[in-house]
Amino acid sequence: MRWTVLGSRHVHRDRWISLRADDCVTPAGVGISPYYVLEYPDFVSALVLDPVGDVVLVRQYRHGLGQVSLELPGGVMDPTDADPVAAAIREVAEETGYAGGAARLLHSLSTDAAKMANRFHLVLIDGATRSRAVAPDPGEEIEVVSMPIAQALEQALGGGIVNATQIGMLLMGLQAAGRLSMRVG
Amino acid sequence: MRWTVLGSRHVHRDRWISLRADDCVTPAGVGISPYYVLEYPDFVSALVLDPVGDVVLVRQYRHGLGQVSLELPGGVMDPTDADPVAAAIREVAEETGYAGGAARLLHSLSTDAAKMANRFHLVLIDGATRSRAVAPDPGEEIEVVSMPIAQALEQALGGGIVNATQIGMLLMGLQAAGRLSMRVG
Repeated sequence: MRWTVLGSRHVHRDRWISLRADDCVTPAGVGISPYYVLEYPDFVSALVLDPVGDVVLVRQYRHGLGQVSLELPGGVMDPTDADPVAAAIREVAEETGYAGGAARLLHSLSTDAAKMANRFHLVLIDGATRSRAVAPDPGEEIEVVSMPIAQALEQALGGGIVNATQIGMLLMGLQAAGRLSMRVG
Repeated sequence: MRWTVLGSRHVHRDRWISLRADDCVTPAGVGISPYYVLEYPDFVSALVLDPVGDVVLVRQYRHGLGQVSLELPGGVMDPTDADPVAAAIREVAEETGYAGGAARLLHSLSTDAAKMANRFHLVLIDGATRSRAVAPDPGEEIEVVSMPIAQALEQALGGGIVNATQIGMLLMGLQAAGRLSMRVG
């Protein structure tokens, strides 16, 4: 099903965004040109559980939608991050001040396979404690919110979390962490 | 927490993509310029259940990630679609040939509140039957796949669905449709 790429160019590229336009042909011979692909570094999101078993989330203004959004802590991987787990530990420390616990990669997915070339990694950090002041990037104003898993689930399923990708990550993460069971019917 | 927008311009805009650059100031007085926002029409995804209760999904090549992806049927809202439910019914008919059943809007969310200005609507279509040939857009090659809910859940939680937004929509949709129960612990 893979398309053949006959040509490729960058329409706009700077340190924040890279927009690529490909000239493609499908296996059926249909030309698709331009097909736009957004090139970002990989993203990481962390499902952080504290020693009590509460979930640690962050609330911040998101200018794309123009709304405040409740999300898992996370962000863009830096070239200096050794791997997604290291990136998640760094982002969680910066955004929430939580550190420690056991960290492991749960899934490597995509946010939007149609438009985006990068990967979205979900990391579990279980047993983290608040141990330092937050160090957000300039311009970031982040509220750290911890809540019981049942309450986070209510937020996810009831519209309290506006970002569908974040809902997917939270539900998948809780299931993979053995904190949420799902039953058909 | 809302940012003030001092200026705004389009860096690239055609019928496929609209990339806006805003000059922003946070409430703390930090200037953020440019902040890029992607302007797309609203998206719709449909959780389609057939009369047996199986889920109807689509498998197609997604050039952003360069992989085949299993997703809910759906797409971009057209200006002629009366509302998200009408858009979902149209997209489902075009992509899968399924029609009929009871359709209702479950949630209006975002795929990426940081970067995207549009909404992502989740529509339930319960009891649809395959009633016509598919009519995909030129260049679209779509495999229609129907499977029991338990199998779709396995795909969602086990890495068989690569798009985290789609996983979120599937899990939320099944829960809202009363076909999936979630229990903490």
